Amino acid sequence: MSFRATVLTLYPEMFPGALGLSLAGRALEAGAWSLEPVQIRDFAADRHRTVDDSPAGGGAGMVMRADVLARAIDHASPQGDPRPRLLMSPRGRPLTQARVRELAAGPGAVILCGRFEGVDQRVIEARGLEEVSVGDFILSGGEPAALVLLDAVVRLLPGVMGNAASGDEESFESGLLEHPQYTRPQVFEGLQIPDVLTSGNHARIARWRREQAEMLTAERRPDLLAAKEATTTTG
Amino acid sequence: MSFRATVLTLYPEMFPGALGLSLAGRALEAGAWSLEPVQIRDFAADRHRTVDDSPAGGGAGMVMRADVLARAIDHASPQGDPRPRLLMSPRGRPLTQARVRELAAGPGAVILCGRFEGVDQRVIEARGLEEVSVGDFILSGGEPAALVLLDAVVRLLPGVMGNAASGDEESFESGLLEHPQYTRPQVFEGLQIPDVLTSGNHARIARWRREQAEMLTAERRPDLLAAKEATTTTG
Repeated sequence: MSFRATVLTLYPEMFPGALGLSLAGRALEAGAWSLEPVQIRDFAADRHRTVDDSPAGGGAGMVMRADVLARAIDHASPQGDPRPRLLMSPRGRPLTQARVRELAAGPGAVILCGRFEGVDQRVIEARGLEEVSVGDFILSGGEPAALVLLDAVVRLLPGVMGNAASGDEESFESGLLEHPQYTRPQVFEGLQIPDVLTSGNHARIARWRREQAEMLTAERRPDLLAAKEATTTTG
Repeated sequence: MSFRATVLTLYPEMFPGALGLSLAGRALEAGAWSLEPVQIRDFAADRHRTVDDSPAGGGAGMVMRADVLARAIDHASPQGDPRPRLLMSPRGRPLTQARVRELAAGPGAVILCGRFEGVDQRVIEARGLEEVSVGDFILSGGEPAALVLLDAVVRLLPGVMGNAASGDEESFESGLLEHPQYTRPQVFEGLQIPDVLTSGNHARIARWRREQAEMLTAERRPDLLAAKEATTTTG
């Protein structure tokens, strides 16, 4: 059984989009995963195909209705479907590579693309939706976030990237940002590749890369170093 | 002058993708912004159109060449171009709504879609590329990240969303996750909308929402509360 993604959205024509090309696209064609976009509007009950209404208690924007979403979810993911149900939302827990890896090891995902103004809380609870955020910024809808999540997952599926992916994984999971990279030409606009990298001394190269990674992480992501230290201390 | 986005990529056919539809697509058609994908491969020097080579010092994967990228950047963004040059990369500083707002207030962006194995460090420095990350996970390339960044920026451009966007902004920038939302129907699968929201008492509603937002943030994003406290103490 290959990874099965179902995306509930008001814009099914956004899928597969970028996921229909390159690595993810070839994997889709090869059957390593499948993607089914579902139009939420098809589950509205009125002739205007209404999916949202104004927020109870007042406020700007519109809220997606619990009853319409519940029907869409129940259609896409009937009882017994083992796939997790994700809601793309800036209120969610930040997506991590660890969660990406878990998802890639599972049977698939049902992904509901929310809107920032929100989804009725009752359907989030009644259907056990896991809110997932791809960052502290606001999108026009959950669709671009769903594309990002699926891209991250698909590259880890068996046979999609092979060893290349696992190499990246290990590097990323050192808890440090990646060291600087260089390649030919040896001289670019008068700038040389650092001597150490062409020294052939593998121990020195490894040490230099580690130091560079630590410096870069300290400068840009002190939060990662702090998290790493906490793990080292307690683990 | 409307916002001008140039995307340097090995997959120009991924654009506009999801950005050609819905809000961003209508804004694109209306001329509120423009999008020019540039094929990096067109700037390779050999007949195989090679853009990458193996990493100096060894290691898995391939590294994008400084000379090829420099030619692509200089073509897309000649000297004097006031637009910032961004490199989508997991090594970058995390994208924030504050940076999104700055970008939306500017003339546009030149966005280079990197690959995880990396871009030769010399071109990053020589062309002043700002590395931007959309999260602690690994994508097949920078393209889905660029789609997310542009979606976040475009919705803030003048005339694209109007007041709806500014409402969301304010809510998000309280430094708290959004409180739960509810809308009609009044009863969904036996679950009522919380009484307070239908009380008509605006002060009570505001207090309840604030408490809910604080509880949710404490549970899911203690880092945001810590950052908020630091700001309050020092600011």
